[in-house]
Amino acid sequence: MNNIFIIGVGLIGGSFALDIKKQNSSAIIYGIDKNKSHLDEALALGVIDEKASFKELEKADVVIVAIPVDATLKVLPEVLDKISENAIVFDAGSTKEDICAVVKKHPKRRNYLAVHPIAGTEHSGPSAAIHGLYRNKTNIICEVEETAFKLQEKALKLFSQLGMRIRYMNPKAHDKHIAYVSHLSHISAFMLGKTVIEKEKNERDIFDMAGSGFESTVRLAKSSPAMWTPIFEQNKTNVIETLDEYINNLKHFKKLMEDGDFDAVYNEMRTTNHIKDILNGIQ
Amino acid sequence: MNNIFIIGVGLIGGSFALDIKKQNSSAIIYGIDKNKSHLDEALALGVIDEKASFKELEKADVVIVAIPVDATLKVLPEVLDKISENAIVFDAGSTKEDICAVVKKHPKRRNYLAVHPIAGTEHSGPSAAIHGLYRNKTNIICEVEETAFKLQEKALKLFSQLGMRIRYMNPKAHDKHIAYVSHLSHISAFMLGKTVIEKEKNERDIFDMAGSGFESTVRLAKSSPAMWTPIFEQNKTNVIETLDEYINNLKHFKKLMEDGDFDAVYNEMRTTNHIKDILNGIQ
Repeated sequence: MNNIFIIGVGLIGGSFALDIKKQNSSAIIYGIDKNKSHLDEALALGVIDEKASFKELEKADVVIVAIPVDATLKVLPEVLDKISENAIVFDAGSTKEDICAVVKKHPKRRNYLAVHPIAGTEHSGPSAAIHGLYRNKTNIICEVEETAFKLQEKALKLFSQLGMRIRYMNPKAHDKHIAYVSHLSHISAFMLGKTVIEKEKNERDIFDMAGSGFESTVRLAKSSPAMWTPIFEQNKTNVIETLDEYINNLKHFKKLMEDGDFDAVYNEMRTTNHIKDILNGIQ
Repeated sequence: MNNIFIIGVGLIGGSFALDIKKQNSSAIIYGIDKNKSHLDEALALGVIDEKASFKELEKADVVIVAIPVDATLKVLPEVLDKISENAIVFDAGSTKEDICAVVKKHPKRRNYLAVHPIAGTEHSGPSAAIHGLYRNKTNIICEVEETAFKLQEKALKLFSQLGMRIRYMNPKAHDKHIAYVSHLSHISAFMLGKTVIEKEKNERDIFDMAGSGFESTVRLAKSSPAMWTPIFEQNKTNVIETLDEYINNLKHFKKLMEDGDFDAVYNEMRTTNHIKDILNGIQ
């Protein structure tokens, strides 16, 4: 397992590169990225060992595709075309249904493992890559039965070295659940940021008053639009459903306030406080 | 400035107590709280030096009122009734208009300073009190001209020792701005938590999938309903206005998705990314 190819040397791909190199000192990390300055930066930062091209994929033992999910639909089949019989390819996309569908009939489908590591930060690019990003994080694997057993083992060993917890799910269920727990959070943060920026023309006021909670709630609004737009596009139906429910809950809360029913307002919050117990242990 | 009375020995009052004691070793911290177990806990934790009652307020040099804002409306005039001519009283409430109004005609109005330290965590109670909570945080002072100059100086010295930045505002502007930057964030987090809990009956799924951003976005949904309900009640008009705008922005985003206009979806996020620059330096 020496030749590791990272396609997309940003936060996700770069963090895989750093930890794999740390765990396997004999590994050579090859970087591929359509953004040449990112590639130079990743090399300069020591995130990758060498710049590479698609032609070289035939010598890959492992290929990690960590690019926006729309690009993955195009690139993943091309990668499978080029790899050897013994290579394992996995992606890290936040959607799984469309990606699994696009390689469903590919002759090398059994060389691909559909993966979504639930990890990240609001930063992006090679300089955002960090050691230990995946430690104690959940890694969702979809359609595991479609991947050759020997290659599953290879990938699982790598995930285990990085300290990840594995959960198996079908792509449809994945996309539905993740819409609630991840995609909706991003929209809620972006629209919160928008609402405040629109209103507070004086940015100094936002900065001065943001301490008490705004900053963490809006954190995800720093995320990359280039990464998130295709996620929302591919998971459109589920995301719209979560937005509907979120908007309805907000309207209900507003109605309770308009009616002056502050006992009910209290109960809305009291019931949701239960999130504390659910999240205990995540930090 | 030796006798410091803290009314409400929770996160906010307790954190004041800890830092004041650290800065002034001769200070004696007296705690008053209607919750007797909180008072015992604060004493056991060393957050306060002595348990006290309202009768003892006559010997106070400084009184800090750090209780829910509905209770403040009732307690603050009683405190002013009992203190000496040389005592300074300030509150820490997240609303200012109603609180300033309730003491407007009080004979000891000039002993009161209307204060809102923009600091906090999602935790509550005496065990949530921490050192340094107020360091580099903004402290909003309202109607400063209504407070006796000598007593202003006393309070400002204390805030300066704690490392706070001062900003002056009128109560109306305070309540309007803070609705956007703090109150709306809390509702957005509570309703996000509610939406996800309602949908994800399997809490293990929430826990496992929450890593990628949900946790920070929903953090404020752990906050105390007893503290937040009266804030929303007192700031009802402003909060409803922010909710209207937030809901409209979410509906617009949903409409763009329904129309398949993902260029516009991208631009919504790109524009809001600007929040990054605004928040730079807050962390």
